[in-house]
This record gives sequence, structure tokens and C-alpha cells, in this order.
Amino acid sequence: MKALIIHAPGDLRVEDVPTPETGPHQLLVKVRCGGICGSDLHYYQHGGFGTVRLQEPMVLGHEVSGVIEAMGAQVTGFAVGQRVAVSPSRPCGQCRYCQQGLQNHCLDMRYYGSAMRMPHVQGAFRQELVAEVAQAHLLADSVSDAEGALAEPLSVALHAVRRAGPLVGKHVLITGCGPIGALLVIAARRAGATHITVTDVAAAPLRSAEKVGADEALNVAQDPQALARYEADKGFFDVLFEASGNERALVGAFGALRPRGIIVQVGLGGEMKLPINMIVAKEFDLRGAFRFHEEFATAVALLNKGLVDVKPLISATLPYRDAGRAFALAADRSQAMKVVLNFD
Amino acid sequence: MKALIIHAPGDLRVEDVPTPETGPHQLLVKVRCGGICGSDLHYYQHGGFGTVRLQEPMVLGHEVSGVIEAMGAQVTGFAVGQRVAVSPSRPCGQCRYCQQGLQNHCLDMRYYGSAMRMPHVQGAFRQELVAEVAQAHLLADSVSDAEGALAEPLSVALHAVRRAGPLVGKHVLITGCGPIGALLVIAARRAGATHITVTDVAAAPLRSAEKVGADEALNVAQDPQALARYEADKGFFDVLFEASGNERALVGAFGALRPRGIIVQVGLGGEMKLPINMIVAKEFDLRGAFRFHEEFATAVALLNKGLVDVKPLISATLPYRDAGRAFALAADRSQAMKVVLNFD
Amino acid sequence: MKALIIHAPGDLRVEDVPTPETGPHQLLVKVRCGGICGSDLHYYQHGGFGTVRLQEPMVLGHEVSGVIEAMGAQVTGFAVGQRVAVSPSRPCGQCRYCQQGLQNHCLDMRYYGSAMRMPHVQGAFRQELVAEVAQAHLLADSVSDAEGALAEPLSVALHAVRRAGPLVGKHVLITGCGPIGALLVIAARRAGATHITVTDVAAAPLRSAEKVGADEALNVAQDPQALARYEADKGFFDVLFEASGNERALVGAFGALRPRGIIVQVGLGGEMKLPINMIVAKEFDLRGAFRFHEEFATAVALLNKGLVDVKPLISATLPYRDAGRAFALAADRSQAMKVVLNFD
Amino acid sequence: MKALIIHAPGDLRVEDVPTPETGPHQLLVKVRCGGICGSDLHYYQHGGFGTVRLQEPMVLGHEVSGVIEAMGAQVTGFAVGQRVAVSPSRPCGQCRYCQQGLQNHCLDMRYYGSAMRMPHVQGAFRQELVAEVAQAHLLADSVSDAEGALAEPLSVALHAVRRAGPLVGKHVLITGCGPIGALLVIAARRAGATHITVTDVAAAPLRSAEKVGADEALNVAQDPQALARYEADKGFFDVLFEASGNERALVGAFGALRPRGIIVQVGLGGEMKLPINMIVAKEFDLRGAFRFHEEFATAVALLNKGLVDVKPLISATLPYRDAGRAFALAADRSQAMKVVLNFD
Repeated sequence: MKALIIHAPGDLRVEDVPTPETGPHQLLVKVRCGGICGSDLHYYQHGGFGTVRLQEPMVLGHEVSGVIEAMGAQVTGFAVGQRVAVSPSRPCGQCRYCQQGLQNHCLDMRYYGSAMRMPHVQGAFRQELVAEVAQAHLLADSVSDAEGALAEPLSVALHAVRRAGPLVGKHVLITGCGPIGALLVIAARRAGATHITVTDVAAAPLRSAEKVGADEALNVAQDPQALARYEADKGFFDVLFEASGNERALVGAFGALRPRGIIVQVGLGGEMKLPINMIVAKEFDLRGAFRFHEEFATAVALLNKGLVDVKPLISATLPYRDAGRAFALAADRSQAMKVVLNFD
Repeated sequence: MKALIIHAPGDLRVEDVPTPETGPHQLLVKVRCGGICGSDLHYYQHGGFGTVRLQEPMVLGHEVSGVIEAMGAQVTGFAVGQRVAVSPSRPCGQCRYCQQGLQNHCLDMRYYGSAMRMPHVQGAFRQELVAEVAQAHLLADSVSDAEGALAEPLSVALHAVRRAGPLVGKHVLITGCGPIGALLVIAARRAGATHITVTDVAAAPLRSAEKVGADEALNVAQDPQALARYEADKGFFDVLFEASGNERALVGAFGALRPRGIIVQVGLGGEMKLPINMIVAKEFDLRGAFRFHEEFATAVALLNKGLVDVKPLISATLPYRDAGRAFALAADRSQAMKVVLNFD
Repeated sequence: MKALIIHAPGDLRVEDVPTPETGPHQLLVKVRCGGICGSDLHYYQHGGFGTVRLQEPMVLGHEVSGVIEAMGAQVTGFAVGQRVAVSPSRPCGQCRYCQQGLQNHCLDMRYYGSAMRMPHVQGAFRQELVAEVAQAHLLADSVSDAEGALAEPLSVALHAVRRAGPLVGKHVLITGCGPIGALLVIAARRAGATHITVTDVAAAPLRSAEKVGADEALNVAQDPQALARYEADKGFFDVLFEASGNERALVGAFGALRPRGIIVQVGLGGEMKLPINMIVAKEFDLRGAFRFHEEFATAVALLNKGLVDVKPLISATLPYRDAGRAFALAADRSQAMKVVLNFD
Repeated sequence: MKALIIHAPGDLRVEDVPTPETGPHQLLVKVRCGGICGSDLHYYQHGGFGTVRLQEPMVLGHEVSGVIEAMGAQVTGFAVGQRVAVSPSRPCGQCRYCQQGLQNHCLDMRYYGSAMRMPHVQGAFRQELVAEVAQAHLLADSVSDAEGALAEPLSVALHAVRRAGPLVGKHVLITGCGPIGALLVIAARRAGATHITVTDVAAAPLRSAEKVGADEALNVAQDPQALARYEADKGFFDVLFEASGNERALVGAFGALRPRGIIVQVGLGGEMKLPINMIVAKEFDLRGAFRFHEEFATAVALLNKGLVDVKPLISATLPYRDAGRAFALAADRSQAMKVVLNFD
């Protein structure tokens, strides 16, 4: 079968890889759709991000859906031919964090298409994938393969939302509206936020955020003071989701955030210089949000029941053989939100 | 002007009352719609509930909307002719609970149409009503007067939902689907619950609950064991909203509720005999939910933005002069969910 | 070796049992001290409690300390001759509750000396005990064997305290001051409670509670209205630990508990008739507390560092061959708080 | 009467000020002791801190105790001659934050000896002070005047501890052990922390921290890698209190803090450059802690009951006429922890 293997920055190849054995408790999934994530782009463009660097060829990809082709002898609860979204996350279940219900901090995590450990964990941009039953979640007929591939980034957004605590009746600000920012609009609305403002430095992502329900979309490149109107009485927003990874976005929102405001930092960035005095004086609560665990099942349940609609975020679906074109499109924020690869 | 005054069980009269003075910080509201609440019915049928008993004639009613007729000289932010939902709750702002942000436990609360204190606080089923600005919330043009009157019971449901903590991805059980139970379906869904089962002993309320989005409606009169299917592995539901005030409903749900399950008790009832051993062994968390405070603004915001739809719960709108017929209809669960009085 | 085996109510025998094999990851512990718990007494006096009933002979006991006699080949971090407190709790680690960090709700729990499952889990009142390394916690030289045996009930109290949330500056009421109630005084004080009132119906336990630091000890048999002084302004206490399992104790405290007060129910009891209206109107939060998990390590750490002093609660230490006398003494609240058996 | 007035950096004068009127609900307090705080030092040395700058002469001081000299006609619950600790905090009680129980974020706060607003709020380093009854807290005979003056910084520490959530059984790291760091040792221990490590760059403060109960005191000037031993398995500490205001202290602790670790930032500092990637990947929770509200009553209760001992932190008590010498001593970390002025 074919897989998309990154060898070095810019060097992404379609290559043959052997189909792995399917264990007695595992599923063999014929991959249909795979979404291109920001981290895939970073491997493609820069060979990694932060301290995470490619050290050997690696199959990319971790946002996939497909159809069950075969099952191990011990598997129950699934049937060949069923469509599934596959979570890329395989925690060990044994370490102290797994035993505390914090599987996203597993000491022995295997996460598809990640160069965090050596040897790298091979990814899911491939025609056939072996998965544990715990990774597979059945898709309803009403959910397309491409939507199913979005279960993973939706899980990231849902995890961030859960890190924020209850959102019913809250005023929410989201800085940065790439795919994660836009999915945060959907997730925060689903969680009951009554007011959602988004900011970005580009027009197209802001339009997408409005399409999925933002009350207000502010271009802070055109108007750097756009949030100033929210600074009266020590601030208006209860919760900030920072999804840009940009220091100016984070710090620029502090004045509009009320005392005891909650900041959920989702965007990865390098170092940021923060006015710690303001964090102290306004008693902000800045929380990191990293990946997800039980939120994958929630994402699929919301998709299956039509309680969220991610379709407006799917910009294009391209065949995996056109990966170069697909990655170029995914990198162009003026044209694309989420680009999906088709592995049929 | 006219008002609906309860004198004794069954003795509800349309009588003239004087229009009160509008203070410099107050609004005079021409009442348009008023919803009949279960507590109104209790005053009408039994002269009260629990230890709360009518001791003097009292204007009934606390779920109202109307239009601003006049304003005190110091009022800003409102204009004559604007439509508002009016919160019945007027906490003192000074006592130790108000200063802790727990205004619903105010030591000097004034709540429209309540016989909890003596003299009773006169209610809002009247043609003109004086309200503090903090009680008035502007309605969008898209929200009807009758929907506006439902802001109050929706606030009760939203408060109960907030008492439960985050609901994103949660499995929710609601026992009892009168108006509050049905509004809990709406509120729990808005807060992100992925599965909502409701139970009741009558068919009509169950159908209403389905109309507003319940995934499953179980008639526990017809099948007392209907919840047994959820008892495997110590239970399925994460959260139970008990809205019937019935001991059997509460206790009957314990087996289907997972360990550490949260029970929000909304329904008032008398004494209940509870298996305290199971509360201990499964470490349930049984929380009372009483009235609301900031949730009134949230209710109006959700209505204004079309983020909830309460219209399916409005069974009928009758002129206030037909109060007897309206109360009889409101008391008939086979025919009515929420009955609204028209005060024009 | 010898063990204390309960055959039927009142029929507790010293009998020979074989020493089990020590697996490669296990420890063989020579038991030195074992505390008699209320549940041991229930087996002895009534053959069980609630629905939990003796169905076959069972070694009693789950509060023990001892010295490591031998170790499996794979064990690290321990040495023969070291003294340990042994947790009676052995969760499976695999089920959904273990994977959520809720090991006390394990679907396949093995807990020493418990008839909850069949075959019963044999207990720790024996001369030699095989334990997993995760069950063993090193005791400091400053901690006596008898104090080490109290690590288990102290864990129960600490778990209840953690269920209550932060206690710094809180006013705490504890109803019932048997060993668990008295340990709750110690634990609540350690957690920062500034005011602790205890109630009981007997003088001796109240004196013990004062010895371990209660600010006030009220005999509600002598003065049933003793708590009335705390009912002004809707109540004084922030948190109630109910450790008697008695309905009157629980309900009798409601008036003295402030709105939003937290009730941690520790005492097992049968059914209780509760004024649900008051739970709703005061928005109490009634939480069950059952056993413990990570609190065992905390209990041993607090004992080792001298941050708690449980010595005043140890009424007597008797040889295991005098079990009958020891159990009789343990059952006499006028004479005994915690009775410890010596297995040397 | 005399007061200590700061006119400019280094220009602190003993001057006559008029005794203010005592209103009907107020107390006139003869000040006995006043502790010199880090912010007092900043006004004295630099004329302010951050954006807060002296713009007019201001009486310094906000950590005081004294004796009631006179009372307004409406005051109850106090008597002339009683000794009190006086909270410097006077929130308005009306604004939206006060009504949410967040009085430390009051929009109209008056805090003794603070140049945050103009005109400045005059301070409490004076012989006579008028206070609201809500500011005064009775001291037990066992508590000295100097200890009473420490109620204020102890409140700051208790507030920070409450911001951290429950500490029972937690591993706590405190970076920076000036007076606030040392009081955090006391407060964290009182709240149930089982392990407390402190770090500083100077020997004397570390010794003080040990005196008040730290398990371990690490000099990170001598051994910058002192915390490395705690980095295995993603970190050891559950909670970090950062009390130095130093970027290196904060960032240097990240490796030793476990995933989901809580950081309470107490120390004010300017901007800090933070590795935001690590905050995200380890899902830290960085919370500002600013001043206090209800914790002042808790501080006094803990002092009155002997549940905390702050005496080891009182380095010296000097007459207010020697303010220059006292401030010089307070600024010398090798010699002084808390320096107290005597106003008799």
C-alpha cells in the first residue's frame, strides 16, 4: 500500500509501505480521508517545530477516517464495512498519569505521525491502518468521511473548551481563527457561550469564523485597537482561547479580559514575553490545553447527532497523490481552512 | 389597573389595584404576557406549598414580559417603548450572601408573587409593573412576548445546569418533564450534553421533551424498569436533573447513575426516603438548585440570539380575564405544558 | 500461621491458614498490628451490614502494619526488615473507573476482609500477609506499629476531607465522633479549618474529639437543641461531615448549615428520610465519601512527618488471641475509641 | 498625631496630621504596630513600582494592629480597649465585582497607603486610624501587637493558598522566601501540604523558611540545578507558589512541576519571557493571586487559635521615629525578614 512519507523539509513522498499485522484485539482500517493539520505543515515546511525535529523518515498524518476492512479474532462491537473515525492517540494505560485519568500526559504515549519520540511514531496518511479498538469510533451515515477526519481537531477544540470550565452564558474571545480557532467557535457555542468574538490578522479566516457562528470577527491587523472597546470596568470577556500562538494576540487581549478571566492557551508558540503584573493584579488563570482524550468520543457523538456542523471548514478534498498541491493549499490562509486528502 | 389576586385556594379574582409610583431609578412596565408557573398553581389549588402558606391576599405571578411605559429620571440605557423580560428577583445587595455573589440566598429577598415572607411580596400578574433597572432585560424583535415570559423558567433551568458543572460530552438523565424538565432538556443540550434521556409518568410531557430535543423519552409508569438497561458497570449517566419532586423518580435513577454522578435536585417535594448507603458507596453528589441570579440575563441572551427555542413549550395564550380557564388548563398535564396569560 | 476467621455472627476463631506464595512483584509482610474497624464489628456482631452478608468463612481485618519478611525477585524500593503500613485496597487498574483515576470505584476491586464479592476477599488479621508493592508504604521510626495501623482509617477521613474541597478558614461541623469522626477532626484541622464543632450522643467520644483538637463538643442527647445557636442568618457552618450514619444527626444539622453548605456523608446508614425542600432551597451539596485511594500515601506521609497525632485515639492494644475481648472492648463506646490487635 | 509620610524616593518624614472624624459606624484605633511591606520599601526606594507612582505625599503603611480608642454611636460588637488587627482593604460593596464576591477586584477600592488611584489613599503608619467595623478583627490576648500586624501579609499568603485549591497531600514548591514566601510555607502547611520545598538565592531567608517548617531549602544561586532531581517522569511538584517576581525562578521550576501543575504567581515583576510551549504541553495552570478579602478574618482566627506561628518571622521591632533605620533594615535580606514599627 501507499503512504505519505516526509523525509526532510519539502521532501514528501508517496511510497510503498508494508501492511502491518492485525493483532487479535485490533482493527484493520482502509483509510478514506485525512485532514492536513498545522503540525503536518510544520514537518513539511520546517522539519518540525520547537524542539520536535524529524530524525528519520516518518509517515505523516493523524486526522483520519476510514472503513473497517478486517478485525482481530477477539474484537467485538465492530463489523467489517463499518465507517470509523480513528483517534491517533494510544496512551499506555499503566503510568501514573494514565491512572489519574490524564492520558494526554502519558509517559509512554504513541501518537500517529509524531516525531516527539525516537523512533518516531508512524502516521496515518496511508491506505491501510492498524488501530486498537479503543481508537475507533463509529460514524453515522449522515457524517461524511471528510467530516469524520475532522473529529480529531474538533477533539482538540473540545478539550480546550473543557479546560475552560463551564461556558454557559459566558463571553468568549478567540484569538486566531485557523482551523482550531474556528472549531473553538463551534465548540464554545455548543458549550453555551452567549457571546463569541474572534480576532485574526487575515480576512478569510475571519469570514470562516463568522460562517460557523462567531458573533463578531475583528481584524486586528487593520485595527490594532479593535478590542479597546471592551476594556471598560476592567474588561468584558470571561474566557479567552488563544489559538494563534502569537504573543501580541495573547497580550493584546489582556485589557479586554475581566478579573479572574480564564485564558486557555491552545496555540503553540515559542517564548512569549508576558506582563506578569497584569496576570497577578487581574488574577488571570492561564491554562495550557494539549491534545485530548475522552473528547474524541464526544467529537464523534456531536458529529453523529448533528449537534455541530464542521462542513463550512472543509475547503477542499484532494487525492493523496496530489499531496504537494494539497499542502501548498493548506498553507495558504487566504484560500484554505481545512484541506482533506482522499486515500481511496 | 387590573391584577390577578389570590385570596384563598380556588379564589382567584381580577381586581383593581393602584399603579405604584415609579422611582427615579425605576421603570414602569406595561405587562403583556405572564406564564403560569407550578408555584402559581400550588397557591391556586392548595394555598401554598410546604411551609409556605398564603396569609393575606396576594397578586400572583413572576414570569412576565412587557413594554416600557415610563422611566424614572435617573434611568439610562432604556427607552420608552422597548420590550423587556422582567426578572422577579430583587435581592438586597448588602447581606453576606449578596456580597458573596449568592444573591439567590439573599437574607432580604423580594421575589414577585411569593408568600415566603410577611407581608407577602406582591406579584406581576397585573397590567402595570414597577421594576428596578437591574430586573429589566431588553428583548430582541425576534422574540415574542410569550417567549419573553419564559425567560424566568428558562433561568431556573440554566441555574440548575450551572449547578451541575460542565456538561460537554455528558450523558444526562432528566426525571420529570413538566415545563422545568423540558426547559432542562433545552438548557442541557445548549450546554453540550451529548445524550439526554427523560422520564415521566405521562405521555404528553414526554412528547414535548422529544420535540425540544431529548434523545430518548421513557414512560416509567408503563415500564417501571425502563432505566435498568443503563445499570451495567455501575451506571451510564453522568448527571441527573430531578425535576419531578418525586421520591420514586429520584431513587429509581440511582442504579443508572455512574459513581461520582451528579444529581441536581430542582423539583421541590416534601420529605424523601433515600438509600444513603448508595449515595455513600457510589459517591454521588446531590446538589439543590434554587431559583437563579445572573442566569436571567443569560436566558434573555440565548432567546435573543435564537440559540434556544422555547416555542414548542407554549401550549396556549389566554386573556387574563379567563384566568380560571387558564389555570385549569395549566393543571392538565395531558393538554398543556406552559400556559401564558395575555394582559393587553 | 494463625488468622482471625469469622464464621458467623459471634463466631470468630483463631485458625491456621497456609502462608500464600509471594509473587515476583509482591512483598511478604509479617503483620504486627491491626485496628478493629466498625465494619469488622458489624461482621462480628451481625454477620454483615446492609446487603453485604457473610456467605463463607472470611479472615477479618483491613487496618494493618507490619515488617517486610521477604520480597519477590522483581521488587525494588523496599528492603527486608522495613516497617510498612499496608493498604487493603487493590483496584484492577484496567477498568473505566481506574482509567479515570477513580480507583475506589473499580469494577473489580479486591479489598481485604470484605464480603462484598463472592468468593470473599480474605482479610489481614493474620500473621503473614502477601501484598503488592503499591499497597505498602514505609513507616518512619517515629511512628509506632499501632499508629501505622491507623493509616487506613485516617485515609478514609482524608478522602472525606478531599471530597469537601478546600477547608482553609472554613467552619466545620462533624456529627458522630467514633474513630472516623475523631480522625475527621484531625484531618479537617490539618486541612486548615478554623472552627470545628463535633456532636455525639455520648460523653466519652466527645472527650476524645476535644483531645484531638475540636473547638467545641456538643452532646445532642443531653441538649437536642445544641445547634440552634448556629441557625441565625441561615446558618453558620460551611461544611458538615456526617460520620454517625444517623438520620437525626444529618437532618438536625441542616438548620445550622449555611446556604451552599457542603455535606460529606461518610457514615453508612440504611435509608434516611430527608427534607428535600431544604436541600433545594439552601442549595446544599450532599456528597458521598467512600474509602480512599491516593490518600493512603498522604496518611502515611502525615504520620511520618508528625503532622498529625493519632495516638490519643488508640484506646488499647491487645494480643490477637484475645480477639473476643478486644472486639467487646471496641464495641463499648464509653471505654474505647480505636482498639488495636497485636499479631506478634 | 504623627504619621510617616513619603514625599519622594528616600524622603520619608515624621509629620503631624490631623486626627480624622470617627463616623457613626466607624472605630478610632490607636495604632500600636505596623509591619513594613515590600511595597512600602518600593515607595521608599523607588517612589513606586510598575506603573504605580507617587504623585503626591502619602502616609505609608497597611499592615497594622492597635487598640480601640473610641467608637461611633452605631457601632456594636466592639468595645473601647479591645485590641484589633485592621485590614487595609475597603471595597465599595456595590460594583459588579463586589456583587460577585470578588472584592479584591473592586472598581472603587480604597486600600491604605496605595498610590494606585489619585488622590492616593492615605496609609496606616500613623498614631491614630479611623476604620470601618468591617476592617477590624479582634485579637486574642495570646497574640502580640506585632503578630497582629502580620495578619495582613498572612492574608496575602492565605489568599494565594486558596487560589491553589486543596493542598492536602500535595507537594509544594515555593520560589522566593521573603516574608510572603515564608508565610506561604506556613499557610501551605496549615492547608495540608505534605512536602514543601523552598528556593531562594540567599542563605538567610532560606534559614527562616526552614524555621517555619519547610522540608527542604535550596539555594539556587549556589546550585542552579538544584531542582533537576525533581524532573523525572515529567515532574514532582503539584503546586508552585512563585513569590520572587523573578523570571528565572518561575521558568526554572517548570521542569520540576508535574503536568496539570498549578502555579500561583504572587510575586509582582515586570515582564517575563515564558516558554509558552511548555505551559501548553504540560497543561500548567498559571494563576495570579492579588491581595485578599475574606482571608483577613481567617488569618486572625488562625493567629488567635495558635494554629499558625508567625513569631519566627519578626526580625525586629523599632520605634516609628527610627523609620529610616527600620526601612534600611527591612531592605537587608541578610538580616531581616519582617521589620515592625512601634507607634506607641
